[in-house]
Amino acid sequence: MRIGLLTGGGDCPGLNAAIRAVVKHALGEYGHTVIGFRNGWKGVASGDLQPMSRDDIRGVLDSGGTLLGTARFHPHRQEGGLEAVHATLEAERIEALICIGGDGTLHAASKVAESGVKVVAIPKTIDNDVAGTDRSIGFETAVHIATEAIDRIHTTAESHNRVMVIELMGREAGWIAVQAGIAGGAEVVLTPEQPFDIDRITAYLRHRHRAHANFSIVVVAEGAVPAANTSMEWQTKYGDFGEIVAGAVGEKVAAEIATRTGFDTRVTVLGHVQRGGTPLPSDRILGSRFGVAAVDAISTGHSEVMTALHGEDVVLVPLAEVAGKSKPVPQDLIRVASALA
Amino acid sequence: MRIGLLTGGGDCPGLNAAIRAVVKHALGEYGHTVIGFRNGWKGVASGDLQPMSRDDIRGVLDSGGTLLGTARFHPHRQEGGLEAVHATLEAERIEALICIGGDGTLHAASKVAESGVKVVAIPKTIDNDVAGTDRSIGFETAVHIATEAIDRIHTTAESHNRVMVIELMGREAGWIAVQAGIAGGAEVVLTPEQPFDIDRITAYLRHRHRAHANFSIVVVAEGAVPAANTSMEWQTKYGDFGEIVAGAVGEKVAAEIATRTGFDTRVTVLGHVQRGGTPLPSDRILGSRFGVAAVDAISTGHSEVMTALHGEDVVLVPLAEVAGKSKPVPQDLIRVASALA
Amino acid sequence: MRIGLLTGGGDCPGLNAAIRAVVKHALGEYGHTVIGFRNGWKGVASGDLQPMSRDDIRGVLDSGGTLLGTARFHPHRQEGGLEAVHATLEAERIEALICIGGDGTLHAASKVAESGVKVVAIPKTIDNDVAGTDRSIGFETAVHIATEAIDRIHTTAESHNRVMVIELMGREAGWIAVQAGIAGGAEVVLTPEQPFDIDRITAYLRHRHRAHANFSIVVVAEGAVPAANTSMEWQTKYGDFGEIVAGAVGEKVAAEIATRTGFDTRVTVLGHVQRGGTPLPSDRILGSRFGVAAVDAISTGHSEVMTALHGEDVVLVPLAEVAGKSKPVPQDLIRVASALA
Amino acid sequence: MRIGLLTGGGDCPGLNAAIRAVVKHALGEYGHTVIGFRNGWKGVASGDLQPMSRDDIRGVLDSGGTLLGTARFHPHRQEGGLEAVHATLEAERIEALICIGGDGTLHAASKVAESGVKVVAIPKTIDNDVAGTDRSIGFETAVHIATEAIDRIHTTAESHNRVMVIELMGREAGWIAVQAGIAGGAEVVLTPEQPFDIDRITAYLRHRHRAHANFSIVVVAEGAVPAANTSMEWQTKYGDFGEIVAGAVGEKVAAEIATRTGFDTRVTVLGHVQRGGTPLPSDRILGSRFGVAAVDAISTGHSEVMTALHGEDVVLVPLAEVAGKSKPVPQDLIRVASALA
Repeated sequence: MRIGLLTGGGDCPGLNAAIRAVVKHALGEYGHTVIGFRNGWKGVASGDLQPMSRDDIRGVLDSGGTLLGTARFHPHRQEGGLEAVHATLEAERIEALICIGGDGTLHAASKVAESGVKVVAIPKTIDNDVAGTDRSIGFETAVHIATEAIDRIHTTAESHNRVMVIELMGREAGWIAVQAGIAGGAEVVLTPEQPFDIDRITAYLRHRHRAHANFSIVVVAEGAVPAANTSMEWQTKYGDFGEIVAGAVGEKVAAEIATRTGFDTRVTVLGHVQRGGTPLPSDRILGSRFGVAAVDAISTGHSEVMTALHGEDVVLVPLAEVAGKSKPVPQDLIRVASALA
Repeated sequence: MRIGLLTGGGDCPGLNAAIRAVVKHALGEYGHTVIGFRNGWKGVASGDLQPMSRDDIRGVLDSGGTLLGTARFHPHRQEGGLEAVHATLEAERIEALICIGGDGTLHAASKVAESGVKVVAIPKTIDNDVAGTDRSIGFETAVHIATEAIDRIHTTAESHNRVMVIELMGREAGWIAVQAGIAGGAEVVLTPEQPFDIDRITAYLRHRHRAHANFSIVVVAEGAVPAANTSMEWQTKYGDFGEIVAGAVGEKVAAEIATRTGFDTRVTVLGHVQRGGTPLPSDRILGSRFGVAAVDAISTGHSEVMTALHGEDVVLVPLAEVAGKSKPVPQDLIRVASALA
Repeated sequence: MRIGLLTGGGDCPGLNAAIRAVVKHALGEYGHTVIGFRNGWKGVASGDLQPMSRDDIRGVLDSGGTLLGTARFHPHRQEGGLEAVHATLEAERIEALICIGGDGTLHAASKVAESGVKVVAIPKTIDNDVAGTDRSIGFETAVHIATEAIDRIHTTAESHNRVMVIELMGREAGWIAVQAGIAGGAEVVLTPEQPFDIDRITAYLRHRHRAHANFSIVVVAEGAVPAANTSMEWQTKYGDFGEIVAGAVGEKVAAEIATRTGFDTRVTVLGHVQRGGTPLPSDRILGSRFGVAAVDAISTGHSEVMTALHGEDVVLVPLAEVAGKSKPVPQDLIRVASALA
Repeated sequence: MRIGLLTGGGDCPGLNAAIRAVVKHALGEYGHTVIGFRNGWKGVASGDLQPMSRDDIRGVLDSGGTLLGTARFHPHRQEGGLEAVHATLEAERIEALICIGGDGTLHAASKVAESGVKVVAIPKTIDNDVAGTDRSIGFETAVHIATEAIDRIHTTAESHNRVMVIELMGREAGWIAVQAGIAGGAEVVLTPEQPFDIDRITAYLRHRHRAHANFSIVVVAEGAVPAANTSMEWQTKYGDFGEIVAGAVGEKVAAEIATRTGFDTRVTVLGHVQRGGTPLPSDRILGSRFGVAAVDAISTGHSEVMTALHGEDVVLVPLAEVAGKSKPVPQDLIRVASALA
């Protein structure tokens, strides 16, 4: 069987573990041929590819990023994109495609499957908001990096009696913010799921600093938005939150806290470091398991499915059930974050 | 409500997160009193205790070990042990007990509950073999430390063309060995679940070194045992495997590999470092969630239950269903380990 | 002898190791009394202090920040500042003062010494620009954190074919930028010591991406400035570089690269995480050695000296020789950075 | 110019940084040809070599081990060894040789230089005992790994009220033990430089545990030996310390402490993990600087010299002054270790 393989969307740690697993298992267990497409769907559309051998995946298990490269390119949103993809798949006689990616890639995968090529998706996103799976590749490493940053900022906050605001990734969902907030012992965690009330936040910080502490950590997901009752005032001051740019929310929240409380307040925008570097074991393992499961799925006739983690098990879920959906942070977790603040 | 709190069995990373969560949530949400017992059940039996305040848990979230201390003491296995425990609980008017521990602690908890004190258990063990929960506190950090060690040994194996044997913890179950083996890209993983055949192992290593590699990593759980067909010979040479001591298996396996293959072979016994140090975010979060859930459980009238992770949810399972049972590594994971070797 | 102890200026990893060494050695070897002042010179001026016992320094060796707190307060720059300092020192019968700090603290120390109190300084600054010593406390940990960030960003740069600009601390000197740049394999390193020519940089990047690479890492110290021939144009576009604010240089450089080359370019401003967290062993050791040496110096009659690292030895240098001076990155190191780009 | 390049002796982190620097600088700055010999002197003797291009050194800066491989092979100690080396060097028209290694390699380099080939050595050893340089490649990373292990063991020691003995590398000199001991806050540090008195150690531990602590960390270099007054008894019990094998000293010291004090005592032998894994920035920088300096030295006519770190400068020292010598830990450092115990 000739299997195509690609990684799409933003890079993250654990992609190489999945690529390695697909290649090792497809070649070793089934004798398939694996064709790697470079730079995601862009490489499928343009025919930029390489046959994958065991040599290509040597020593990649503990490396971040993706050896295949990636790009934010979605064939179904480009004029002629899907046609170009189909042309390449046909020319290369690709019978099945394993697509490692986030929501955009899942959507593209559904579209491509309509043409008859078998498609199995593997979910990856540091934001952890792909529906239908407990976890996606890259999330736990991102939480680790974010928590490490909070730990570091903690010592400065305490030594200087400061409020430290740290903005983390998470445009649609606050998974990284909530988990790193719990793990780092943040006093306040702001997420896209729960519009925040700046008055309540500053009241809480004033109370805390009066009562028993001289510093605070405020974690802000990049997609956090102010609640309706305060958003008017914010819009006047800072413009429309619909056009949030990196760093914007964190800086605004810090500015408001500083102005309203008079506390020495600083902001850090963690940025791209959250997607890089050596993957945690849990992401290497998840990538490895998903890679093996995807090859097994394709080899046993499955299509239009996504590998998923359900508890301790790796299962297959229909793409139709998950593409286009999102997975918000559950109330339970948000409650733990605020109970321990 | 007066709640007793203890940590029993071996220490591990994430215990302080659980202690912190219990104290913060019990005091902040419910106004309970929390009495901490020192050194596990030993402290209950001897009345060694301290009321816990918010000051006691400041700054502990990212620290390893347990601030309450622990000991390998089981009241139900000591003459008069349970009586002493009950005497203290009565004298201190303890209405409920939160016990953080492994299988021994769960068992003791069941016994103590017979007297009428409410009991909620929180599972912790780096070995991950507590039944009824996807994960126990401490496991993921142990896997991380073990994987880091394999990563380090990898570079020496390659640079010197060696077979490196590394012995990891896991007396009854091979969870650390299998997960660190997958994450570290080990060629061979030996677990208590699957008796090993030294002939097959050495044949595989010879084949590998002839075909395409000049080094190998062999991961051995401390409870790994030889298969029946080879055990006779091993018994003659090394004595009864029933009396395995730390380091024994790794050294024997390394000696056999060296003798049979002639490859330069070295052994490392990772030992106590696997239970220590800064907890990973996932163990801090699990400890925090379990701590909050245990307090909620007790406050709403539950008893003889254990907090457990099922997929993304924290749930309560009856102690009777899990105490005395063990959770072996599933075949699925073992298969991934060998598929990617 | 009654010794005062303070930490001044920005916090950094390794301060607690120095504090611990001063207290342990002063109490254990000489039987001195140690009075800790809170929040740097501010605490001396206001009489905010605590006698230090062995209990106060338990468990702090591997923690970041300073348990004494710090503040950016310089008594010699405040009206009545020095007088308040002297009043406290006299009231508390302080015979000698150990000041851990950067250039501002060294300067204040010189002024205070004029009154007759013995003064020994210990140099700390993540910027490493204190003159007279090979290294200051905090520098190596900051380089480690910065390098780790570059390593992480590297995988994203490669996976997405991007130019990644990373702004690091270093207002007066580019020590962190140069060392992290060498360690992280950066293609371009911009420092305050060498005004940069944006034309040369973009020409080099274009050449590199044409010839053999599809990504680049550009490290920018926050105090980097454009060379005279281009600064005019920059001033028109971005305003005066004399008023650089955090993030400004990195963002400007990234904007210019993106505009001139058309490459996908992103910027990360690492910020406060560079000063925090667990100190590297080398900073714990340096702090410990400086602390012991400072106590020895005071106990043997020295004053107006700074502990310093010269090669493998800890020595004393006169404050007069180092206060007010700065230590730029040597050409040798800058040459290595560019030779390996 | 045709330059040969090899890494000899045990592997360590930072070797690849040195190899990369030699290749990049020799090719980029001077247009030399670089021939890499595989597996140290063994590859020179047998003619196992590869011309080095920029492709060979891509992505290796942050990797441990040596991409050239290494072996514990010394041509001057083998019958016909030097002749074979000379034959290869002549056949390959090698004009100069850059040898990265420890004392054995320095010695071999001196011998090879007698034949007229220019030789420049680069010192590496995790033991840090090469004379003539402040630091050798690999040392700081080894100290980091060892300190991390002590940090981890610390939490178990405290939680279980134990004496934890940890054996670290260092057969001839106790550099790792002393520096990791200071950084990890060990109570006792045993080195080859100072024969130890087990009576004094156990008396100290008993005193400490009576007075104010319930746990202790004892660091033992693998080459530590008992003092004359106790060695007789030890010899009777454990045999000749002249034949120390890995793990032996640590286990014996732990056994004696347990017997004499009755404290719960455990031993960990850290072993091979100390030589592996991602190099710290300081080792990447040292390797990079030494690599550039070695190429400069050869290109400007130097021979029979070693690159060395003196304070902040990289200098050249004559091989004759350093080969065969060793660098013990200075009393100053040992004093700091015991002052802070």
